[in-house]
Amino acid sequence: MTPKQKQKYEDLGFAKLDTDREARTGTGEAVYCAGKTPEQLLRILRKFREKGCRVLGTKCSAEQAKFITDAGEQIRYDSISRVISLLGDAPAKQKRGRSAGKLKRAVNLGPVAVCCAGTADLPVAEEAAQTLEFYGVKVNRHFDVGIAGLHRLLSKIGDIRKSKIVIAVAGMEGALPGVIAGLVKSPVIAVPTSVGYGTSFDGISALLTMLNSCAEGVTVVNIDNGFGAAIAALRMLQIK
Amino acid sequence: MTPKQKQKYEDLGFAKLDTDREARTGTGEAVYCAGKTPEQLLRILRKFREKGCRVLGTKCSAEQAKFITDAGEQIRYDSISRVISLLGDAPAKQKRGRSAGKLKRAVNLGPVAVCCAGTADLPVAEEAAQTLEFYGVKVNRHFDVGIAGLHRLLSKIGDIRKSKIVIAVAGMEGALPGVIAGLVKSPVIAVPTSVGYGTSFDGISALLTMLNSCAEGVTVVNIDNGFGAAIAALRMLQIK
Amino acid sequence: MTPKQKQKYEDLGFAKLDTDREARTGTGEAVYCAGKTPEQLLRILRKFREKGCRVLGTKCSAEQAKFITDAGEQIRYDSISRVISLLGDAPAKQKRGRSAGKLKRAVNLGPVAVCCAGTADLPVAEEAAQTLEFYGVKVNRHFDVGIAGLHRLLSKIGDIRKSKIVIAVAGMEGALPGVIAGLVKSPVIAVPTSVGYGTSFDGISALLTMLNSCAEGVTVVNIDNGFGAAIAALRMLQIK
Amino acid sequence: MTPKQKQKYEDLGFAKLDTDREARTGTGEAVYCAGKTPEQLLRILRKFREKGCRVLGTKCSAEQAKFITDAGEQIRYDSISRVISLLGDAPAKQKRGRSAGKLKRAVNLGPVAVCCAGTADLPVAEEAAQTLEFYGVKVNRHFDVGIAGLHRLLSKIGDIRKSKIVIAVAGMEGALPGVIAGLVKSPVIAVPTSVGYGTSFDGISALLTMLNSCAEGVTVVNIDNGFGAAIAALRMLQIK
Amino acid sequence: MTPKQKQKYEDLGFAKLDTDREARTGTGEAVYCAGKTPEQLLRILRKFREKGCRVLGTKCSAEQAKFITDAGEQIRYDSISRVISLLGDAPAKQKRGRSAGKLKRAVNLGPVAVCCAGTADLPVAEEAAQTLEFYGVKVNRHFDVGIAGLHRLLSKIGDIRKSKIVIAVAGMEGALPGVIAGLVKSPVIAVPTSVGYGTSFDGISALLTMLNSCAEGVTVVNIDNGFGAAIAALRMLQIK
Amino acid sequence: MTPKQKQKYEDLGFAKLDTDREARTGTGEAVYCAGKTPEQLLRILRKFREKGCRVLGTKCSAEQAKFITDAGEQIRYDSISRVISLLGDAPAKQKRGRSAGKLKRAVNLGPVAVCCAGTADLPVAEEAAQTLEFYGVKVNRHFDVGIAGLHRLLSKIGDIRKSKIVIAVAGMEGALPGVIAGLVKSPVIAVPTSVGYGTSFDGISALLTMLNSCAEGVTVVNIDNGFGAAIAALRMLQIK
Amino acid sequence: MTPKQKQKYEDLGFAKLDTDREARTGTGEAVYCAGKTPEQLLRILRKFREKGCRVLGTKCSAEQAKFITDAGEQIRYDSISRVISLLGDAPAKQKRGRSAGKLKRAVNLGPVAVCCAGTADLPVAEEAAQTLEFYGVKVNRHFDVGIAGLHRLLSKIGDIRKSKIVIAVAGMEGALPGVIAGLVKSPVIAVPTSVGYGTSFDGISALLTMLNSCAEGVTVVNIDNGFGAAIAALRMLQIK
Amino acid sequence: MTPKQKQKYEDLGFAKLDTDREARTGTGEAVYCAGKTPEQLLRILRKFREKGCRVLGTKCSAEQAKFITDAGEQIRYDSISRVISLLGDAPAKQKRGRSAGKLKRAVNLGPVAVCCAGTADLPVAEEAAQTLEFYGVKVNRHFDVGIAGLHRLLSKIGDIRKSKIVIAVAGMEGALPGVIAGLVKSPVIAVPTSVGYGTSFDGISALLTMLNSCAEGVTVVNIDNGFGAAIAALRMLQIK
Repeated sequence: MTPKQKQKYEDLGFAKLDTDREARTGTGEAVYCAGKTPEQLLRILRKFREKGCRVLGTKCSAEQAKFITDAGEQIRYDSISRVISLLGDAPAKQKRGRSAGKLKRAVNLGPVAVCCAGTADLPVAEEAAQTLEFYGVKVNRHFDVGIAGLHRLLSKIGDIRKSKIVIAVAGMEGALPGVIAGLVKSPVIAVPTSVGYGTSFDGISALLTMLNSCAEGVTVVNIDNGFGAAIAALRMLQIK
Repeated sequence: MTPKQKQKYEDLGFAKLDTDREARTGTGEAVYCAGKTPEQLLRILRKFREKGCRVLGTKCSAEQAKFITDAGEQIRYDSISRVISLLGDAPAKQKRGRSAGKLKRAVNLGPVAVCCAGTADLPVAEEAAQTLEFYGVKVNRHFDVGIAGLHRLLSKIGDIRKSKIVIAVAGMEGALPGVIAGLVKSPVIAVPTSVGYGTSFDGISALLTMLNSCAEGVTVVNIDNGFGAAIAALRMLQIK
Repeated sequence: MTPKQKQKYEDLGFAKLDTDREARTGTGEAVYCAGKTPEQLLRILRKFREKGCRVLGTKCSAEQAKFITDAGEQIRYDSISRVISLLGDAPAKQKRGRSAGKLKRAVNLGPVAVCCAGTADLPVAEEAAQTLEFYGVKVNRHFDVGIAGLHRLLSKIGDIRKSKIVIAVAGMEGALPGVIAGLVKSPVIAVPTSVGYGTSFDGISALLTMLNSCAEGVTVVNIDNGFGAAIAALRMLQIK
Repeated sequence: MTPKQKQKYEDLGFAKLDTDREARTGTGEAVYCAGKTPEQLLRILRKFREKGCRVLGTKCSAEQAKFITDAGEQIRYDSISRVISLLGDAPAKQKRGRSAGKLKRAVNLGPVAVCCAGTADLPVAEEAAQTLEFYGVKVNRHFDVGIAGLHRLLSKIGDIRKSKIVIAVAGMEGALPGVIAGLVKSPVIAVPTSVGYGTSFDGISALLTMLNSCAEGVTVVNIDNGFGAAIAALRMLQIK
Repeated sequence: MTPKQKQKYEDLGFAKLDTDREARTGTGEAVYCAGKTPEQLLRILRKFREKGCRVLGTKCSAEQAKFITDAGEQIRYDSISRVISLLGDAPAKQKRGRSAGKLKRAVNLGPVAVCCAGTADLPVAEEAAQTLEFYGVKVNRHFDVGIAGLHRLLSKIGDIRKSKIVIAVAGMEGALPGVIAGLVKSPVIAVPTSVGYGTSFDGISALLTMLNSCAEGVTVVNIDNGFGAAIAALRMLQIK
Repeated sequence: MTPKQKQKYEDLGFAKLDTDREARTGTGEAVYCAGKTPEQLLRILRKFREKGCRVLGTKCSAEQAKFITDAGEQIRYDSISRVISLLGDAPAKQKRGRSAGKLKRAVNLGPVAVCCAGTADLPVAEEAAQTLEFYGVKVNRHFDVGIAGLHRLLSKIGDIRKSKIVIAVAGMEGALPGVIAGLVKSPVIAVPTSVGYGTSFDGISALLTMLNSCAEGVTVVNIDNGFGAAIAALRMLQIK
Repeated sequence: MTPKQKQKYEDLGFAKLDTDREARTGTGEAVYCAGKTPEQLLRILRKFREKGCRVLGTKCSAEQAKFITDAGEQIRYDSISRVISLLGDAPAKQKRGRSAGKLKRAVNLGPVAVCCAGTADLPVAEEAAQTLEFYGVKVNRHFDVGIAGLHRLLSKIGDIRKSKIVIAVAGMEGALPGVIAGLVKSPVIAVPTSVGYGTSFDGISALLTMLNSCAEGVTVVNIDNGFGAAIAALRMLQIK
Repeated sequence: MTPKQKQKYEDLGFAKLDTDREARTGTGEAVYCAGKTPEQLLRILRKFREKGCRVLGTKCSAEQAKFITDAGEQIRYDSISRVISLLGDAPAKQKRGRSAGKLKRAVNLGPVAVCCAGTADLPVAEEAAQTLEFYGVKVNRHFDVGIAGLHRLLSKIGDIRKSKIVIAVAGMEGALPGVIAGLVKSPVIAVPTSVGYGTSFDGISALLTMLNSCAEGVTVVNIDNGFGAAIAALRMLQIK
C-alpha cells in the first residue's frame, strides 16, 4: 500500500468516499442511502460529482430524494426501485476528464435478462435493471414468469437463452432461478426478495431455495439486493 | 409445450395473467394483492374480467379496495378477511361464454367444515370460508372451539364429522387440527395463524405443532394462508 | 365420552394401543418405532395382531427388525423405507372378524402418483408408496424427476395427470411439488426430505419452499414424513 | 453473607458441593452427570454421602454407572431414565444426623400425576417420577395418553383430577399439557421432550406449543428436564 | 362428556364463552383482547357479566378500553399492564348467585412475591400482580432488583422468603429467577419479557436463560405472559 | 452482605437506583431509557443528581428528551447517538462531595480509537465515543473505514495503532474488527450494528462474524451496544 | 417440449440420467453421491460412461469409492475433496463421438484463482479446483490467505488480479471474499464452509458474512459447495 | 505493504504460517487443530519451531496428539482442555534469538481470575488458563462457583476482586459473568460453553445471556473459545 494509494479517497469526516474504486474494481462506489441523513446523502453525492465520479444511490427513500431536489439538484429517481443518481454533469465530466489510468465506461455490454417471478418482485428487478442500464448494459426484462404457470416462462425461454447472463428475481418459494438454470447455458444470478408472508420469513425461504438449487450455475446475492446482482453481472461481462 | 399453449396468458408487462390456469389446474389464478400498487391491481382485475375469468384477490388492503371502488368498479370486499372480487359480470360471462374446453363451475360441492380455535383467528378462517363459497362450496363454520375448553369442540363434533373435509385454523399453540384429526375420518387441512405473542413467533409455534401432529391425516399450509387451504380442499372435493 | 368408548384401547402400561382408531378415523394406528425398545415394539405389534388390527410400523431400524424376526415373527420389512409389518394372520382375521361396525378395507383405491426429485429421496418416497399399498391403494412411481432437468418431469406429466392425488417428495430446494401443482388438477401433498447439505438444514429449506408454493393446491407434511402423506392421501380418496 | 454461610460447601477443586442447599431451598443439590468424568462423578457422590446428604444424579450414562459400581459402590440406577443414586447409608445418616436446623424429609406428599403422550417419552417421564419418589412423593403414572386417541386420556381424567399436581410430558406436537390443563384444577408442569423427527427440532416444537398453551395454569421446564419438573412439583407441594 | 357438559358455554358465533371454566379448572376464562375488534370485546365482556362470571381481559389497548367506556361501561383499566375488567356487578352477582357447585372465590390467599429486574419490566410484572389481586391474592411487589446490583435483591430476600410463591419477571439476560431460586424454598415462576434490544431478540434470550436455570424449582411461562404466571400461582396456592 | 451495603441504593418504588455502583464497579449506573415513561426517566435522573452521582442515559428518544427539557432541566442530548445527561451540577457536586471511599473521576485516560465501517454505523459509534468522553477518556474517531476500500483503513492504521484500545463498529458483514485485530496489538472491542437489510438480520450477521473472528484479541458486545463497549474499554484502561 | 426432447434421458427406475444436460446447459450432470447406495452410484456412473458422457461425482465417501474400485472400475478419487470420476474411456469417447450438436470440451479456459482462508477449508477449495480442472480450466491455488494475517493475501494479490474469476473459500468469519472483491475487478464467487465451532453454526456465520458483503461483485453458493462455485465459474468463462 | 512485510510468512502450500504475527499483534499465531490432518499439524508445529516461534495448538484431538508423539516429538498436551505445544526448544531459541525488534515474552503479568460455573465447563476454563500460563500470566482458578449456590461465589469474591481481569466461563443459563461484573471493577471476559441440553442449544442460551448482561463491563467471545478469552486478556494486560 503506497502513500499514493492511501490518499485515494475523499474524507468528509462522517464518510470516506472511495474515489479510487472504479479504477481498482471496475465499478464505482455506490451509496447505500438507508441509514444516512438527507444532509449526509446530499454531501456525498455532490462530492462524488465534484471528483468526476458517476455514482448510484440505492434504497433511497422518497423523503431523501425530495430533500435533494429541494436543494436544487436535478436527479434521476425511480420510486419503485428507489434508485437515485444526479443528472447531467457526471457523464460529461466523465467523457472529458477520464485519463488513461481510469476505466472506460462499458459500452454495448450485454444483453442481460432480468426475470422476476411475480409483480410484487418488480422493485428489486428494476433495481437490478436500472443499475445495469446506468452502466451501459442492455437489459431484457421478463416479469411475472413464476413457475405456477410454467408456460409463461417457456414461451420466453428463447429470448432468455440469447442473453449472456440471467438475473432471476423471486420471493415466496424462490424456485425460478433453479428452473431457468436447468434450461440455459449462461450464468444465473439469483436474487431472493422479501415478498411473501408467513413462512416466507421476509425472503429467507426464497434465499434457501436458491442456495440449494439442484440446477447448476446458480449463484446468489443478499435478499432484495438487485443492485448487487447487477454489479456482479457487470463484472462477469467484463471478463477479458 | 406447444405454441398454442405458450400463448395462453395475457401480458401486461408488469404481469402475465395465467388465463389458462383454470383449464389446467381446476381453479383460476388468484391475485395476491399485497405488494402491488392499486393501479396494477385494478388493471389485473379488469383484464381477468375482460377475458371472462372469475378471479379472487387476497390480502387486499382497505386502501386498495377503496382505489378500485373509486375507479368505478363494484366489488365484494370483506375487511376482516381482506378477500376481494369484482361484482357482477364475470359469473354472467361465465354462464354464457364457457365452452366445452373450459371447466364447469363447481356446484353443490362440500360441505367443508371451517373451524377456528379463537376469535382472533377469524380473519384467516373467513378467508378460507369465503374462498370456498366463491367457488360454490358449502361451508359449515365452527369458530372459537379451541382446546382450552374441549367441550365446545366435542359438542360440535357430530356436525364436523358430517363434513367431507375439515379446515382447522389456529394460532398460539395450534393444537386444534391434531385433536380434530383424531376424532374424524375426513382429511384435515391445518392453517396456522400469526395470532399470539412472545413465543408464538407470528405463527411458527402453531405451524410446528401442526407439522408434528401425532394424529394422522393432517396436512398443512403456510401461516395465515386460508386461501391456500380452501383451494386445496377444492381440489380434494373434485377428485374423480 | 361414554364408558364404552373409554375402554376402546389396550393398556400395556408403557403404551395404550388405540384399537378403536380405524373405526373412528378410517385408518388404524401406526407404530412410530424410533425411541421404542425392541421389546416394547414386539409387544405392541403382537397385541395389535391379537386384537385383529393390521398395523404398520415406521422408521423401524434394522436392529429392531432383526429382534422381531429372532423372536419368531414373520415380517415384511424394507430396509430402504424402514417400514415394517407382521405377515399373514392380520389380513386373515380381518376378513373373518370384521363386523358391520368396523371399517371395510379400501379396495381399488387410487391411483396415487408418488414422485420424487432425486434418488436420495427414495426412502421417503417408498415409505409413502408402501404405506399406500399396505392399505390397498394403487401407486404410480415416478422417481428422479427433479426440476434441474425439467424434460424428465414433463415426459411423465401425462401419467401424473391421470392420478387422483400426487405425493411429491423432494429435498434440497424442494421445488418439485410447486411445479407439479401448476400442471395438474389433483391435490398435491408435498413431502420435504432431509436430503442435502449446508443450507438445506436437514429439510428446512425444502419445507419452506413447499409452504410458500405459489402454485395452488399444495399442502405439506413434516420433513421425511412419507407415512403421513400416504395417510392423508388415503383420507382424501375416501371422501364420500 | 456471613462468614459462616460462606463455608457451607465442600471444595473439591473441580467442584464445590453445595451441602447447604437443602436447608436453603428445600431440596438437596443434584448432580448433572453429563460432561463429568467418571472419576469426578464418583468423588462427588461419595463426598455428598460423607456429609450426610442424599443426592440424585441425572443423565447418568451406563458407562458412568458401571464405573461407580466397579469402584465398589452399591447404586440404584435406571437405564431408561438414567437416574442414579447411592444406596443405603445416606438415609440412615439422615435419620440420625439431622438436627432441628435441617429440613425433615418429605413424607406422604402427593400424589403427583406423571402423564406422557407416547411410549418414546417414557425416559423423561420416568426421570420425573423417580425423582419424586426419591423425595418421598407418591406418583400416579399415566403413560401413552396422547391426544391422537383422546379417549385414552379421558378415561383416566378422573384419576388425574385427584392428583395435587400434574406433570405432563410430550414430544412431537406437545399438545398434551394444554389439553389436560383445560380439564383439571391443579397446576400442570409441562415437560417437552426431544422425541420426534424433522420439524420436531429435538423438542423445540413441543416446547413452543407448551409455552403458547391457551389453557391456563401451565408452566414449562427445559426440554427433557423431567428432573426439573419433579423438583418444581416438590416445591409446590411444600407450600405452607 | 355428557350432554349437560357440552352445553356449558355461550355461543356468540364469533366466540364461544367457556362459562364452565371456573368450575372445571378453578379460574374463570380470561379474554385475550389483542386481535379482537372493540365490538367483539364488548359483547364478550357483557355476556360474561350477564352469566355472573367475573372475567379479566389482558393485552387490552387504550383504544379498546376507550370504546368500552364510550359504550357506557364502567371499567377498571390500567394502561401500563393493559389489564381490563368491568366494574361492579360481577362481584355482587357472584356473592348471590354462586351455588354449591361453583367455586368459592379465593380468600386470603398468598402472599405471592412479584419481583422484576428492571423498571421496563414493570408492565408485565403489574399484569401478574393485578391478576393475582383480581382473584383475591395478596401481592408483595419488589421491582428493579436485577442482578447488576445484587445488594438490592439481597436486602429484600427476607421478605421474598416469606412469600409462598415467587413470580420473577425479567428481560434482557433474564438471570433474576435463577438467582432467586437458589435462595428460597418456594416455587419460582419465571416470566421473560421482551425488554431489551439486539440479541435480546424480544425476550428469547431471557426465555432461554430461564429454561436453562441451574437453580432448581423454576418453571417458565411465555414471554410477557404475566397473566399466565399469576394463574399458575393461583393453582399452586389452591393445592389441597 | 452487611446491613450497610444493603442500604446503598435509592428506592423509588418503580426503580431502585444503585448509587453504590461506581464505588463497587468503577463506573456509575447508566439509565437504559427505552421502555421507561418520561416521568420515570425524569425522576430517576433527578434522584441520581440529588445523590451526587453523574449518570448517563442511553437510547433516549427525542420525545423523552423534550419532556425533560420541558420540565426545566438543562440537558446534553445528541439526537444521533441518543445519549443524554443532565448538565451542570453533578460534576460540581462530584468535585466537592467525593470522599476517600469513592472513586476518583478518570483523568487523561486513553486514547481509545473508535472506528466504524460505514456512515450508517455512526449512531452506535457516537454512543461509544460520547460515553467515553463523558467519563473523561480521549477518543480518536475513524469513521467509514470499511473493508470494501481497504486503503482507507490502512491509511489510518498508524493512528489506530497508537490507541490503547480499539472499538470497532460495523453492521452488514461486520468484518472490520477482525481485520483491525490482525494489524494492531491493543484489545479490539467489536460492536455489531443493526445496519443492513435482508440477511443482515438486524445485526446478527455482523455479530456472528465478530464472534468467529480468526484474528485474536477480539471481544464482542451486544448489537448496537456502543455504551457497553465504552464501559468495557473504561474498565480495561483502569487495570492497575 | 417435443417428444424428441422428452426422451433425452436414461431411466434406471431409481434415477433418470439427464444425458442431455451438457447440450442444454453447457456442463454435464454431476452425481451427488451422498444418500445413494454404492450399487446405485456404480450403475449411474457406468450408464453415463456408456452414453459417452463424462461425469463427476461429489461428496463421495471412501466406502463408495472402494465399492466402485472393487467392482473393477478404475477411478480418479481424491479423499480430501471427495471428488470421483471414472478413468479413461469417457474422454476418448468424447473426442470421437461428439458431433456438431454437442458442446465442445472447454479448452484453455481460465485461469481461475481458488483461494481459501485456512487449511481446514482445503477440502472445499479442492472440490472447486478439481471440478474446474476436470472441465479443462487452469486453476491458480492460493491457500491459507485469511485476513488475520492480511499480508499473506496482499503478497498474492498481483497473481489473483490476473485471474479471470476468483473463487474465495472461507469458514468461521468468512470475510475473505469481501476483502478480495474490494481489490480486484473480476467476479468473486464466495463459498462458505462448515469449518469452525460454536457460533460458526456449521457455516451459517460465513454464509451471512458473504451475503452481506459491502464489497461489490460477490455472489454466493451453498455451504461447502465447491462444486457449484466451479460450475458457475465455468458458465462465466463461457459467456460469448 | 512493503515487499519486506509481504515475505513475513512461511508458505507450506496448504498453509501460510504467519511468523510475523507476534511482532505485529503481540501474540504469536495459534494453530486451530480441528480440521487439519495429523500430518499437516505436525508440519506446521515443526515449521514454527524451526522459525523460533512458540506456538500453541487448540482443540487438538487425542489422535492428533498421539500422531505427533509417535513422530518423535515431545509435547505438552492436556486431554481435558485439548491444548498442545511442543516442548523444549522454542523457549530456548526465544531467549537467544529474540532481537530488539521482537516482542519480549510477558513476565509477571496478571493475575487473571478464571472462574467457571460448573464442573462440566472445566475444559473450556482450562483452555483459557493454560493459554494464559503459556504466555507467562499468573492464573487464579475458581471452579464450580455457579449462581445456584451464590455463597460459593461470594466466598471467593475477595480473591476475584484482586485479579486484574476476570474470565468467566459458563454454559446452560450463563449468568455467572453478569453477576461477577456487578461485583468487581475489572473487565470481565465472558465465555459461553456448549454445556447443557435441550434449550441450551449447544451454548446459544449462555451466549445470549452474556451479550445481554445488564451489568457493565462484560465482553464476550465465541462459544467454547477459552483460547480467545485468554488472548484478549493478554492484550488487555499489555495496554501501555
